[in-house]
Amino acid sequence: MQLGDRVSTIAWNGYRHLETYYAVSGIGAVLHTINPRLHPEQLAYIINHADDQYVFVDLTFLPLIEAVHTHCPRVRAFVLMCERAQMPAASKVPNLLCYEEVIAGKNTDCDWPQFDENSACSLCYTSGTTGNPKGVLYSHRSTVLHAYGSALPNAMDVSSHDVVLPVVPMFHVNAWGLPYSVLLCGAKFVFPGPALDGKSLFELFESEKVTFSAGVPTVWLGLITYAKQNDLKFSHFRRTVIGGSACPPAMMQTLIDDFGVEVVHGWGMTEMSPLGTAGGLLAKHMDLPVAEQRKILQKQGHAVFDVDMKIVDDEGRELPWDGKSYGHLMVRGPWIAAGYFRGEGGEVLQDGWFPTGDVATIDEDAYMQITDRSKDVIKSGGEWIGTIDLENIAMAHPKVAQAACIGMRHPKWDERPLLVVVKKPGVELSKEEILQFYEGKIAKWWTPDDVVFIEAIPLGATGKVLKTKIRETLKDYQFPS
Amino acid sequence: MQLGDRVSTIAWNGYRHLETYYAVSGIGAVLHTINPRLHPEQLAYIINHADDQYVFVDLTFLPLIEAVHTHCPRVRAFVLMCERAQMPAASKVPNLLCYEEVIAGKNTDCDWPQFDENSACSLCYTSGTTGNPKGVLYSHRSTVLHAYGSALPNAMDVSSHDVVLPVVPMFHVNAWGLPYSVLLCGAKFVFPGPALDGKSLFELFESEKVTFSAGVPTVWLGLITYAKQNDLKFSHFRRTVIGGSACPPAMMQTLIDDFGVEVVHGWGMTEMSPLGTAGGLLAKHMDLPVAEQRKILQKQGHAVFDVDMKIVDDEGRELPWDGKSYGHLMVRGPWIAAGYFRGEGGEVLQDGWFPTGDVATIDEDAYMQITDRSKDVIKSGGEWIGTIDLENIAMAHPKVAQAACIGMRHPKWDERPLLVVVKKPGVELSKEEILQFYEGKIAKWWTPDDVVFIEAIPLGATGKVLKTKIRETLKDYQFPS
Repeated sequence: MQLGDRVSTIAWNGYRHLETYYAVSGIGAVLHTINPRLHPEQLAYIINHADDQYVFVDLTFLPLIEAVHTHCPRVRAFVLMCERAQMPAASKVPNLLCYEEVIAGKNTDCDWPQFDENSACSLCYTSGTTGNPKGVLYSHRSTVLHAYGSALPNAMDVSSHDVVLPVVPMFHVNAWGLPYSVLLCGAKFVFPGPALDGKSLFELFESEKVTFSAGVPTVWLGLITYAKQNDLKFSHFRRTVIGGSACPPAMMQTLIDDFGVEVVHGWGMTEMSPLGTAGGLLAKHMDLPVAEQRKILQKQGHAVFDVDMKIVDDEGRELPWDGKSYGHLMVRGPWIAAGYFRGEGGEVLQDGWFPTGDVATIDEDAYMQITDRSKDVIKSGGEWIGTIDLENIAMAHPKVAQAACIGMRHPKWDERPLLVVVKKPGVELSKEEILQFYEGKIAKWWTPDDVVFIEAIPLGATGKVLKTKIRETLKDYQFPS
Repeated sequence: MQLGDRVSTIAWNGYRHLETYYAVSGIGAVLHTINPRLHPEQLAYIINHADDQYVFVDLTFLPLIEAVHTHCPRVRAFVLMCERAQMPAASKVPNLLCYEEVIAGKNTDCDWPQFDENSACSLCYTSGTTGNPKGVLYSHRSTVLHAYGSALPNAMDVSSHDVVLPVVPMFHVNAWGLPYSVLLCGAKFVFPGPALDGKSLFELFESEKVTFSAGVPTVWLGLITYAKQNDLKFSHFRRTVIGGSACPPAMMQTLIDDFGVEVVHGWGMTEMSPLGTAGGLLAKHMDLPVAEQRKILQKQGHAVFDVDMKIVDDEGRELPWDGKSYGHLMVRGPWIAAGYFRGEGGEVLQDGWFPTGDVATIDEDAYMQITDRSKDVIKSGGEWIGTIDLENIAMAHPKVAQAACIGMRHPKWDERPLLVVVKKPGVELSKEEILQFYEGKIAKWWTPDDVVFIEAIPLGATGKVLKTKIRETLKDYQFPS
């Protein structure tokens, strides 16, 4: 092994995964966390692209490795993260090692090597919706700075007396830095392993007295539904950071009002380590009515020190911070990537700024709010319509389980919004009823032109709505004339 | 002005002082904060030693400048931090400028210069009890890292909705980094100026809805006394960090139980920027009885990430973390000085570690507790007696206002503890009564051999007990035989 060699993991959130985080980066190798939900072809592609020397694999994912190992001939060994007794009697994979056997009897005193703080520490591939995944390298320096920034009271806010259960996977942008920030703060870590259903999570929250968790909105749905159905309350859970996509206002309200859990909006992306902003009030907001405070908490929040933000128009001209002007969100800072691993995708920065691909407003108090993805924003008659607001309104309808909004070709306006809705089980819901629900909540010309009901919204490997898939399914759709 | 030129301040905690912090360091100059309580001779010494180009002075301290300006011929100008209308009609100081006049009409858009992160940012002189003060330089890098570390939930724990009133002076180790950490967190700052008496502080806490403050124990005495005498409670004050010297258990109890203010012990020193450790519980302590929790909070706490600690004996051998072994406390980390400005005092580090001059224990859970200063520890018959425990017990006696313990020559034991006590006004208190108070609280041979009552404990410029002064006053003292 050489300084900078890659070692990958395909694993759930567990203590052996955490050990691997520190062991691999600690010897100067690069921890490459792989999303097990990737298509086997993509999985083999990134193992080879990263040139992984060793691959550490949870027992659950042995079939995945058996399917791809012949396509990854340069991997020196696959290490199964289990006890000797759990090892399979036979396997198609010849170079298979046992984790506990590999580390047994080794010296536990480690003289950590000294090397440049700008050395690579870990590697994540973005789940690109088009083309092959691209790798983002993090350095020891950027990881430590991000750990400090994300541990701050306005972001994760974890103290030594907290008990943290990361719901966000450790294969997904380093679980938003929690493996670093939680240990930095001295808190207790609790790992859910593969059991992420509402019942398992709730029981673990209670038995381990969990005070803090973080994850994407879709994961909270299961937990909230289970707790509501069984009329359960959390005894210790006090705060959660929600990111990945915006937390629907209805979910925020449930968590705060019904469960007494403080909800903090986080925003970021793989290229940002990932944390960019975090929600929170200012001193001057503390005496506002709750409804006003909620509006502020619904925004993505303030840039975490030392992230800089700006919004620009299509020509790159900076737009004002007035809470109304929206433009392409650009960021820069010590934990923001300047490009992709092996130069894939070419030059990325624009004048030193990273284009996030999000459309946002920034208000007078420096609160940023995402209004859309640049590629999802609907351009109707030369004006922009943000789809997130439209989706949040639909999601607040009591008969709607999930909703997505996409721009569809329109003969007159170029594009117009089409609402795609999954009804709650067993309810009757008409197009007219849901469209009426928009009245008075939004400018009339923003209202979707039509509604299509579907069985399920397609989600990507990290729980994000795949609008490309929806567009594919509806490629023959035409607005009623 | 050149990159690295020094600019000094002699000022209270005020907004112009904060502006100077950012303006001076922001242009690449070095902010040198001067303690106005220094003897004029020492003040002139450090202005000359630092080679300050400009000195920014609060109106209050004009007499100080009039007394020393002729001894500081290299200062280009003294800038009075006031409005034009407040400027004196005449002054002995020829090169006197007005702050508001200097900045009036200037461009408020600033292109911050780019320079190496290891460039010097600020400079503090230690108030050495012997010899001339020695300067400690902080770099931009060390200041940013310290700001992150000290802003963490286990340390200052300041969020964007907090209102922070720094009681610790901005001329004292950068007010423990608050001018950086509070702005980094986006909280509101409230400045007390020179009004640090109990009444003024209490009124400012209430009118500005202050939630967080930090300072040395002696300052809290005035505030607590005023609030108690007038039967007042704080409406918003929720947390304070106390450092400089250990917070007496009785004061901690009053703040927590009577006022509902969370008390966090901080420990550090000028050479450490200053924060080294902060108190706090672990998850496993949350169900302990309150009295047990208090004992843990009474310790100086855990090293803030990324400070390393160890304790060593007189020969430099590392001692175990068992909560009992005590030795010289050594530290290292990115915001710990490697030496003094202009090389004063020569080589300081021992094998890369900075000797703090404190004697401490570290327990199995990595909690550090100061038992004494290396120079104050009493060596009785070859064994060490820590004076802080002895002082805390005396301070807990209801008739004692203040207490200090010093080692005095003893014909048989080399040194034995002598307790020096200031009685509360109007009470009767005998030596026997206070010595009996130690029974059952401490090993018998630790009990002081004698008690001396004095009128006042001498305090240094930063509020610390000057044991050297006490020893001087009592130099002819002899233990009763």
